[in-house]
Amino acid sequence: MAGNSFGRLFRFTTWGESHGAAIGCVVDGVPPRLTLTREDIQRDLDRRRPGTSRLVSQRREPDQVMILSGVLEDQTTGTPIHLQIANQDARSKDYDNLAQTFRPGHADYSYWMKYGIADVRGGGRSSARETASRVAAGAVAKAILGAFTSITIRGAVVQIGTEGLPGGSWDEAAIDQNPLFCPDADTAKTWQAYLEDIRKKGSSVGAVVEVRALGMPAGLGEPIYDKLDSDLARAMMTINAVKGVEIGDGFTAASRYGEDGVDLMRGEAGEKPVFTSNHAGGVLGGISTGQDLIVRMAVKPTSSVPTTRDTINRQGRNTTVQTKGRHDPCVGIRAVPVGEAMMACVLADHVLRARATGTLVLDPRLPRE
Amino acid sequence: MAGNSFGRLFRFTTWGESHGAAIGCVVDGVPPRLTLTREDIQRDLDRRRPGTSRLVSQRREPDQVMILSGVLEDQTTGTPIHLQIANQDARSKDYDNLAQTFRPGHADYSYWMKYGIADVRGGGRSSARETASRVAAGAVAKAILGAFTSITIRGAVVQIGTEGLPGGSWDEAAIDQNPLFCPDADTAKTWQAYLEDIRKKGSSVGAVVEVRALGMPAGLGEPIYDKLDSDLARAMMTINAVKGVEIGDGFTAASRYGEDGVDLMRGEAGEKPVFTSNHAGGVLGGISTGQDLIVRMAVKPTSSVPTTRDTINRQGRNTTVQTKGRHDPCVGIRAVPVGEAMMACVLADHVLRARATGTLVLDPRLPRE
Amino acid sequence: MAGNSFGRLFRFTTWGESHGAAIGCVVDGVPPRLTLTREDIQRDLDRRRPGTSRLVSQRREPDQVMILSGVLEDQTTGTPIHLQIANQDARSKDYDNLAQTFRPGHADYSYWMKYGIADVRGGGRSSARETASRVAAGAVAKAILGAFTSITIRGAVVQIGTEGLPGGSWDEAAIDQNPLFCPDADTAKTWQAYLEDIRKKGSSVGAVVEVRALGMPAGLGEPIYDKLDSDLARAMMTINAVKGVEIGDGFTAASRYGEDGVDLMRGEAGEKPVFTSNHAGGVLGGISTGQDLIVRMAVKPTSSVPTTRDTINRQGRNTTVQTKGRHDPCVGIRAVPVGEAMMACVLADHVLRARATGTLVLDPRLPRE
Amino acid sequence: MAGNSFGRLFRFTTWGESHGAAIGCVVDGVPPRLTLTREDIQRDLDRRRPGTSRLVSQRREPDQVMILSGVLEDQTTGTPIHLQIANQDARSKDYDNLAQTFRPGHADYSYWMKYGIADVRGGGRSSARETASRVAAGAVAKAILGAFTSITIRGAVVQIGTEGLPGGSWDEAAIDQNPLFCPDADTAKTWQAYLEDIRKKGSSVGAVVEVRALGMPAGLGEPIYDKLDSDLARAMMTINAVKGVEIGDGFTAASRYGEDGVDLMRGEAGEKPVFTSNHAGGVLGGISTGQDLIVRMAVKPTSSVPTTRDTINRQGRNTTVQTKGRHDPCVGIRAVPVGEAMMACVLADHVLRARATGTLVLDPRLPRE
Repeated sequence: MAGNSFGRLFRFTTWGESHGAAIGCVVDGVPPRLTLTREDIQRDLDRRRPGTSRLVSQRREPDQVMILSGVLEDQTTGTPIHLQIANQDARSKDYDNLAQTFRPGHADYSYWMKYGIADVRGGGRSSARETASRVAAGAVAKAILGAFTSITIRGAVVQIGTEGLPGGSWDEAAIDQNPLFCPDADTAKTWQAYLEDIRKKGSSVGAVVEVRALGMPAGLGEPIYDKLDSDLARAMMTINAVKGVEIGDGFTAASRYGEDGVDLMRGEAGEKPVFTSNHAGGVLGGISTGQDLIVRMAVKPTSSVPTTRDTINRQGRNTTVQTKGRHDPCVGIRAVPVGEAMMACVLADHVLRARATGTLVLDPRLPRE
Repeated sequence: MAGNSFGRLFRFTTWGESHGAAIGCVVDGVPPRLTLTREDIQRDLDRRRPGTSRLVSQRREPDQVMILSGVLEDQTTGTPIHLQIANQDARSKDYDNLAQTFRPGHADYSYWMKYGIADVRGGGRSSARETASRVAAGAVAKAILGAFTSITIRGAVVQIGTEGLPGGSWDEAAIDQNPLFCPDADTAKTWQAYLEDIRKKGSSVGAVVEVRALGMPAGLGEPIYDKLDSDLARAMMTINAVKGVEIGDGFTAASRYGEDGVDLMRGEAGEKPVFTSNHAGGVLGGISTGQDLIVRMAVKPTSSVPTTRDTINRQGRNTTVQTKGRHDPCVGIRAVPVGEAMMACVLADHVLRARATGTLVLDPRLPRE
Repeated sequence: MAGNSFGRLFRFTTWGESHGAAIGCVVDGVPPRLTLTREDIQRDLDRRRPGTSRLVSQRREPDQVMILSGVLEDQTTGTPIHLQIANQDARSKDYDNLAQTFRPGHADYSYWMKYGIADVRGGGRSSARETASRVAAGAVAKAILGAFTSITIRGAVVQIGTEGLPGGSWDEAAIDQNPLFCPDADTAKTWQAYLEDIRKKGSSVGAVVEVRALGMPAGLGEPIYDKLDSDLARAMMTINAVKGVEIGDGFTAASRYGEDGVDLMRGEAGEKPVFTSNHAGGVLGGISTGQDLIVRMAVKPTSSVPTTRDTINRQGRNTTVQTKGRHDPCVGIRAVPVGEAMMACVLADHVLRARATGTLVLDPRLPRE
Repeated sequence: MAGNSFGRLFRFTTWGESHGAAIGCVVDGVPPRLTLTREDIQRDLDRRRPGTSRLVSQRREPDQVMILSGVLEDQTTGTPIHLQIANQDARSKDYDNLAQTFRPGHADYSYWMKYGIADVRGGGRSSARETASRVAAGAVAKAILGAFTSITIRGAVVQIGTEGLPGGSWDEAAIDQNPLFCPDADTAKTWQAYLEDIRKKGSSVGAVVEVRALGMPAGLGEPIYDKLDSDLARAMMTINAVKGVEIGDGFTAASRYGEDGVDLMRGEAGEKPVFTSNHAGGVLGGISTGQDLIVRMAVKPTSSVPTTRDTINRQGRNTTVQTKGRHDPCVGIRAVPVGEAMMACVLADHVLRARATGTLVLDPRLPRE
């Protein structure tokens, strides 16, 4: 209720500040006797970890997760799972001069106005460091998806600043072969040069991230207010720096006519129906159809660039600020594993909810008996 | 929990199908002794009502709301408010031939797969008729906003199909002077001709709707997972046919550099800070800054056009379908009052939440004492 | 969230005041394709209905329920079920003289202090009339229990004022053969004379109600904070005039030694274990064991007796009050169907929750595979 | 949602098993800028701590709490507070022989049936050790009560086994002067001898614990389903070994007549009304009246006594069990600080909720303006 929890039946609660001793999360609602190893979680954390290339934050965190409860001999016990990650490389002095000044484009001002107190070092609670906890929770969610469905989730960067992808490229094999999660090997090279240039200039750039779920069952989503797509929109919009979310055709649909952009169906009795296209992104009326789920989010560039900027201080007086902390030239890159994790959490929650009411449709053949 | 409720402290629950006897909602969490008249609610319903022009659905519903509880002599009592609207013009026979066939682009297939039973007439529960209940709930939310803040909410259509607005036009006075909620009087005429043409062809078209809140306090939004913008994203994505949501610059931010698109601040001690721009759309780190709140949503065209379409029936067999029901050439138009209502509900909820923790900042002068 | 809803997955929300046009509830989270007839609901309402004998309130309400959504041809559709009951015999003038005076032992004072406005007629929202909505919701809950389990629920009055039951009497067949829900035919006669005497004196009396669930599965209850017994305690304590709740031995357990009052187990491989007693009332560690569930609640006498009483008015000044409204000599009697309904709602909620995580144990044979 | 959280606006989530590395809780919804020191929390933990006398468990835990987030320089920041306590004296081998056998009266069987996997050492998740997390959360709740109200909370043992208190004794000064939380100095000596005798016999005994809140505001509680008393009943029933809960007169009310046991009111305009008695226990219609809040709970004796007992094992076969772990002769004693903590959490939650709607009545003078 109080803002730091996500999900209904599968529910995680995160805690911790960027420069405190540790961060972590409690994951509740996990069915018992699912296989879950520390390595499952660590693998996902390693994909999100800073310090892995010059194109992401130079903060060096081993991000080793500890499982403090809820798992016994690599099996979930049905009790809450507490996951904890130590903060090690917290250079607070980078932030000393910021204590009294609001960095433009950051949450400094809004947090200060709301709370009147703030641990500003590294952004405190509003830092992207919090997303490590979500990635850990997402790994638990994937254990649920693996146990009860055939869902797999895959994210990629599909636009970086002004640079797009050649139409329709989505080579899953390529995604992990480059540090930018680009789903096209050739484009990845272009983007790396582009981003290296931005990094050298001390600038930063936005991105569009796409996250897909394959092997979807039908029947996920609880209309009207817990629709699958509305829960996904909320989930993605909770990620730092995200300013927009689309399902399927998204904003393109606004300029379409009713004859176009509709997914027709073909089928035979006793078989799974086939859609001739996927403009809907896998959701109709808030309920999954069994088609691939397709979500995109717009990530703004980090506002922390070394340019001197006009701003005010806590006294309300004009001043300027120049940020020196270690920051990513494109925060959108690290948003990929975070977006995957959030989608996994939304889907795990809806899988459990659909199991409760008997509305999880793993076998979508018609006619339904 | 079960999908038909929205909000935490200010919470409404809707019920009813398109062609049942009535629809309605229970609004809970309303503070006592707020002024609320039936006319306040009816006025908003009248703006959403079908049958008001040739450019929206020809279904004729007087949509007269009844207040069955929670209000005494035009004052809220603090008990749940039940609002009910009769369904009158429900021409079920328009839908007779559809009972066994899935209309492409509609929720027919996904509902059938999930539930295995469906009141298909008029879309049943998935019909846009349900949005009348939200508009009624939104009117109650506005009573809360009026009592505790200076917030006012205004929506408009800013793109209809391929037709945009002349850059930056937003003439609030114009919005209610045309049946399209267009915030520019000249553009409204162009759009009406455009839409009339579409209607004659039996086609339909998408739209982009923008909803703004003015007079915003700072401090609304509960990080990390109940951010103001993530709650708004969810809220808008629950509206029928919405496929994308943006806050502030939205997807444009993805192609920006860190130096651009940042809202700088200027101020003097003892005064309210001034932002030099509003790329953020009024939210930083999930918390309102006091700037205008700006949300946009992409609405797809209704898929109900009279073209004959390939589809399948409940037996899974190929067939075709041609819809004849009364439908809007642009459902995006009626999404305006619905979007306003959803924003009002989100804000009312967060106003109550911020009151609970003392983090509602009606006077944003610095330094904070 | 706002106080008028109960349950998580199976969730109902009630609305309405004692002397408004109607009362009702929205029941959400009901699985699709369960059989549910209007008669199923009406039957339970008829058991709670006032005006059926001289020993309960003389208010005459036919209490005919209308199903306004969520049911199609006697089958649930998975959408919210709205149930509505008209108020007919609302003699507001009985309450005219009370408008400015707080009735001792009633909620008049606390509601007034909290809300500063009140529809006092018949107690408004705090009237026991609200319990009709719960009974209706309980009938829907029973449809869930019937579909997924073998649970049956049975309540009875086990103490009325100073009069108890002969030790251990619980003849289910007797319960509906007398107007007092007494589980012992002979005792029922004694009680009727006792209560008739109280009624003639214009007095009222308290009671203890016991509610049992038979055919219980194991595995219901979500530790630590949504234990089956803690949810039941909450449920029963929401019923008007209830001042205490016990599970199994209840307060008797406080004076016991560790050697006594423990339920031992006996069994054979491949069979359902047998408990040699049921002091625990069917719950250990917050989780059902498969034994009968046994809950008792203490109901105070209605405070509305015709004696002139000291009290104060809304101005804070001393005055006296003499209530004349139609009231039950023992409100505990009508608490029986209400308690049954609340238990059904708690169990239906936990059945759905256990289905979600695969922890509903319909077949409790050991060893578990 | 998933069972390990408590509260709505003030909400805590606990994690951890009896014999894991640590236990802890996340406390969310805490307003910013409240004074909260580690010592505040430690003081309450020290009152609950085992190993402090021969009359409670001999397990020796220093129970030193660590604050890992949400507090900056002894002030709450409005972000989630994570509290962690290491497990040190976890003698797992005491439990080795129990791994395959269900201890009668414990949660072993029900957990096994529900989850099919269990960390049985020390009861795992169902151990009373979890209550340390609640006591820590309760200390945070008290910081809220201290900031916004004059509420103070005090618990005591009012019955131990067959031994009661001399009528009406409640000497607050005495409570902390004896290891039994007995509110009467003379009775404390009698009880100590009685309990020492029980301890020597290797037996155990039940208790009744009473928890009171003084300095109550009016207006706390959200009818109908989040009544103050129903939330308290739930809260107390979540405590290990509690089998019954009463408010005010509790079960005594069942044998009363309507003329008796009613709290009359006296007053003068412009003054706080006075009740002539407190049978209601401070709550009418689910809302606090401003009188002292009085709740009692029945605690059963721990079932772990060294007698050899009939039971079955995980194969369902008959066997016997004799428990050797370190256990309290009366678990009811340590339930006192836990009950105080739970009451603090319920009240803090309702204080925040009432602040949201403006229904917290700190000054109950009449007439209300």
